Order: sequence, then structure tokens, then C-alpha cells
Amino acid sequence: MEVVQVLHMNGGVGETSYAKNSLLQQKVITMTKPITEEAITKLYCSKYPEEIAIADLGCSSGPNTFFLVSELLKVVDSVRQKIGQKSPEYQVFLNDLPGNDFNTIFRSLSIFQNKLRKQLGPGNGPCFFTGVPGSFYGRLFRKNSLHFVHSSYSLHWLSQVPQGLESNKRNIYMASTSPPDVLKAYYVQFQKDFSLFLKCRSEELVDGGRMVLTLIGRRSDDPSSKECCYFWELLAMALSDMLVEGLIEEEKLNSFNIPMYTPSPAEVKYEVVKEGSFNIDRLEVTEVTWNAYLDETDLSDAFKDGGYNVAKCMRAVAEPLLASYFGEEILDEVFRRYREIISDRLSKEKNEFVNVTVSLIKP
Amino acid sequence: MEVVQVLHMNGGVGETSYAKNSLLQQKVITMTKPITEEAITKLYCSKYPEEIAIADLGCSSGPNTFFLVSELLKVVDSVRQKIGQKSPEYQVFLNDLPGNDFNTIFRSLSIFQNKLRKQLGPGNGPCFFTGVPGSFYGRLFRKNSLHFVHSSYSLHWLSQVPQGLESNKRNIYMASTSPPDVLKAYYVQFQKDFSLFLKCRSEELVDGGRMVLTLIGRRSDDPSSKECCYFWELLAMALSDMLVEGLIEEEKLNSFNIPMYTPSPAEVKYEVVKEGSFNIDRLEVTEVTWNAYLDETDLSDAFKDGGYNVAKCMRAVAEPLLASYFGEEILDEVFRRYREIISDRLSKEKNEFVNVTVSLIKP
Repeated sequence: MEVVQVLHMNGGVGETSYAKNSLLQQKVITMTKPITEEAITKLYCSKYPEEIAIADLGCSSGPNTFFLVSELLKVVDSVRQKIGQKSPEYQVFLNDLPGNDFNTIFRSLSIFQNKLRKQLGPGNGPCFFTGVPGSFYGRLFRKNSLHFVHSSYSLHWLSQVPQGLESNKRNIYMASTSPPDVLKAYYVQFQKDFSLFLKCRSEELVDGGRMVLTLIGRRSDDPSSKECCYFWELLAMALSDMLVEGLIEEEKLNSFNIPMYTPSPAEVKYEVVKEGSFNIDRLEVTEVTWNAYLDETDLSDAFKDGGYNVAKCMRAVAEPLLASYFGEEILDEVFRRYREIISDRLSKEKNEFVNVTVSLIKP
Repeated sequence: MEVVQVLHMNGGVGETSYAKNSLLQQKVITMTKPITEEAITKLYCSKYPEEIAIADLGCSSGPNTFFLVSELLKVVDSVRQKIGQKSPEYQVFLNDLPGNDFNTIFRSLSIFQNKLRKQLGPGNGPCFFTGVPGSFYGRLFRKNSLHFVHSSYSLHWLSQVPQGLESNKRNIYMASTSPPDVLKAYYVQFQKDFSLFLKCRSEELVDGGRMVLTLIGRRSDDPSSKECCYFWELLAMALSDMLVEGLIEEEKLNSFNIPMYTPSPAEVKYEVVKEGSFNIDRLEVTEVTWNAYLDETDLSDAFKDGGYNVAKCMRAVAEPLLASYFGEEILDEVFRRYREIISDRLSKEKNEFVNVTVSLIKP
């Protein structure tokens, strides 16, 4: 009987917070800003509510934790000033798994609040912050208590490694060589998780409430297409090389799989329609280059090395998973090899993450 | 010009969490349970709400953090079972200063929730927990978002050391030798803080919402009476001895004062009536012996030593204050002397903390 690996990866566990707080993530928030901005503006203008309760799911702990909130509040404040409305009060729920470092968030809160107060100017309503520990694949809030839900780069993490991946052998994720039952097992887990997520949020959101979700996804209908699986395939290559050299055990590698699913827009749409609680307002695909520092100037040499950047970002995400499975001692060697492989590929081709963003409304 | 010492002491800062989580504090919660029980029962039975939002202000981090919540939920669950009502959903806001260790609370949450689920049995509604960092001498929650507020052993801490205590010299708190202007300065600060607290909570509580507050207080009308000031007077004795021996500076001791106020029931009543947002349902005084272990059996020798127990508890409370003022190096010596003094007194007399508990309703 297979043991179910429950690997909670909301995005804020241990080193994964690096990824959530990287330049990459900030670029994603900025890139999807028009969608978020439109959603919060529509929410505000539909009723001019006296209070707005906002939840950020998978908030992590770092500079980006507050980045999204300040963007949302600036939008509402700008609109309400234009039309001469009194500012609403804000309640912000910052959610991540219980292992997230909420202490650091809370201790940097007053600096953020002072900064925000200056940015928004006088007349702006108070903003109350709370931390909410727990998995978003379950209820987190009271019924009808939220107006706006946001989640970025968290929902592609499944609640657990799918069951039935025995035949995935040396792959660590869906790959072009994965048998059909592996692809199906991944998809089934995604459907179950995403549908549960929608159900829980629909209970928590008020009627007319809105939700903007961004996941790593793909354009292609093929779940094993290169655009979404390539970065894991390259990591699998590094692990396979180490297996050949006897540095890791075959049995371990054969049973290791990443609990992630990178859906197509059509798959997202299908689940939303099937679950039935939400209407889709917008559904869009964007791309962000693997090496977030590619267009930046004034970088140190290390940051100019795309292999370094991407490997660092991926290490942040994959380290807790690899460490708990293979042991910490292999990590440096895995990521040294991974960096080499990525540097080689990046010199030959430009690779991008595909982001699927969906803007939903509870009618 | 006097520098204002803002010493936030909600009860959860650093070592003060020991005091909040001591047997003493648990005894206080148990002792005041009939009042809390009555208040939550009346709240529930007035409307049988579908949801109850509870805030515990100055929750600290430790076993007692969850003790109060589980008591409240058991009461509601017992009542609703008797009358065959469907369970409400609960939202619990745990508040303390941003320096409180919320990570520890959040990481022990699932164990507590599993335990609670078993205690309450089937049919009990979900209970959602959030952490709220900030001082309760300011708004913490949205308007009309709370049904029940609880605070135990936190509200006797002032928001800051009162201004105008220059003449309090070798006293560190109100004492029989304090000049009248010192007593007045303390009282003015208490009035200001307590009144602000009531105003903030009245905005946050729904109509019909309730609040149960327990503070260390006194029976006497005299704010410098022994019943509330004695434990600080004994600490001042230890410090004075060290001053005589040249171990601490006179100027430092003269300007050191504890930011606390231990009101009489009449003073509490006066502020509630003056502020005007709440009606008093009950106002009671209880006593708890300094040495909480006095009636316990099966104790190690150390715990049988009242001086040890009381000094440990007081050290937990006073250490952050003393350390920031006199430096950490004096702490061991201060509390060695304090323990000796207390042991001596306890052998001659039984000393008690006086607790003032007020049960309020927002009409």
C-alpha cells in the first residue's frame, strides 16, 4: 500500500518563502496587476462598502507579503478619492501554513503600516491585519466574511502527492515519458483540490465577492508539455546523474514526485464551471522568464548568471521536498548539477513560466 | 523634559508569557469562570447566532492561550445541545503585542483543535483561529465584528509609564510613601487608557456584544494600599538594598517606575459609566494567593518554597522592564534578594492578589 505524502506547500514553508519573495514573484504580481486592479475596483464600485475584508492565501513571509496589499489599497483609495467617498475600513487576513514565519510578518507590520499611511494620505480608513494559519484546502474563515480573495503562486501546489504514481520511475513530475495513468493521477488530484478550494472560498465570500488567482500553468492541452514540466525534468536529470554515480538510491528516486499541477486555462475554466459557485470574469495567460533578473541592469556577476538565479529560485521551492525525502546531505550536489544544466540550456534557449490568472465573482 | 517610557506589557512579551501561563493565571481563569460562563451563555441565548466571533486580548503564548477558548466553546456547546440548536461557527481572534510568539501558538493549533473536537463531539461547528498583533489601546478589529471580548491579567498594564513621577524617588510603583501627585499621575494614566480601551471595543463589538475583563486590582479606595502595592514594594526593597551597596545607580532607581495600575471596583465602574458605551452586568472581586502552588500536593521542594514561586512569577513579569532599564547583569542578584524577602514575609503572613472582574454588555 502506498503511503500518502502530504507535503504542504502553500508557498511559505521554510525556504520556499524565498521563491514567494523573489523578484520573479514581484514581477508576477505586477504583471497581473491590471486584472487584480479591475477586480478590486469593480468590487468597490458595485456597492461602495464601508468595510472590505481581503484575504491573501499563501502570503508567505517577506517583502512581497505586503506588496500585494498595498497595491490593492492604493487602487481603492484612488477610486474613492476621485468620487469623494469616505474610505472604507480594511481587514486583511494573511494566510499561510502554520509553519510560516508569522512572527516576522507581525514584527514588520508597524513599519509597513506607517509607510502605507504616508502613501495613502489623510482620510484613509484603518487597516487591521490578522494572521490565519492553515491550509487553504479547507475552510479558513467564517461564512460570508470575505469580500476579496487573492492568491499568487500558491495554488499550483497540491494538497498531497497524488496516489498511483508507481510507474513514474525516474521522472519526478509529469514528463513526456510519463505513462498515461500518471498524468491522470495528477489531474485527478488537481481537480479534487481545486474544486475543494473553490467550494471553501464560496462559503467564505459574500455574494458579489471576488477572487483573483494566479497559478503556474501551461498554454498547451498536453499536461506533460515542455512549457510546464521542463524545469522539473532538468532537476530529474541532475538526480538521475547522481543515481548513476551511486549517490542516491534508485528506489528513492523512483518513488519521489513533486506535488504540483500546472493547469491549462481550459482546465481551470472546466473546474470553475463544474463546481458552479463562481462566474469567470477574466481568464488570462501571461509569461515570465525563468531568469527574473534578465532585464535588470546593475547586477553583480552572480545575478547575471541565469543558471545561478533559476537554480536558487528552484532550490528555494524544492529544497524542503528533497531534504525530507533524500536527506539534507545531497542538496548542495543536486543544485550544483542543476545549475550547470540550467546554465547550459539558458545559453541555447529562452525559457518562461506560464501563468494562468483567473478573476472570479461569486454572483 | 521627561522622556515617555512606552513599555508595552499586554502580557505576552518575552518572559511575561510565563506569568500568563502560570498556574496562577489558570487559577484566575477558573475562579472567574462563573462570570465568563454566564456572559457567554447570555450572549448565546439572546439570539442563538449562527456565528460567534471571540477575541482574547493579551492572549500570550502557551497552554493558557487555548484554555480560555476551550472553556467558552464548551459552555456554548453544552447549551446548544440541551436546546437542540445547530452549532454556531466560531471565529477566535488571539491578540497580543507584535513581539508575542504567534508562531508557537499557530504550530500547536492543530493539536488543540483535534483535542477540542473530541471534547465537544459531533455536530460542533468549525472554529477558525486568527492571530491579531497590536496594542489593545487602539482599534484592532473592524467595526461591529466581535460578539465576545475577553481579557485576563493584561489590562492592569498601562500603555506607558505615567508622566510626572519625578517625586516617586526610591519607590518603583505607588507606595505608602508616594506623594499625592504620583498617585494622581498613575490614576490619570489609568483613566485615559481604560477609557480608550472601552471606546475602541465598543466600536468593534456588535450591539448586544459582551466583554469580560479581569485585572489585578484592590478592594481599598487607597491606591497605595498594601493589598495591591506590596509585591512591588518588596521588589523596591531589593533594589534599594542594591543601591546602598553601590550595585545600581541612584538616578536610575529614582526614575524607574512600573507601568501598571491596580484599580478598585469603584474606579472601574466610574470609568465604564463615564465612557458610556457599556452597561455593567456584574462587577466582582476575587482573591488568589501569591503562591499559586500553596494548595497543591505532590510538588518538588522548589515549588514548596513560596519565595521561589512568587519571585519566579514576578521575575517573569518584571524582567523585561528591569532589563531594559538597569541592564541584564543585575537581574539574578535582584531576584535572589527578592526571593529572600518574599520567603521571609510569606512565613509571617498570607498575601493575595486581588482581582477585579467586570462583565459588560454593549446595549
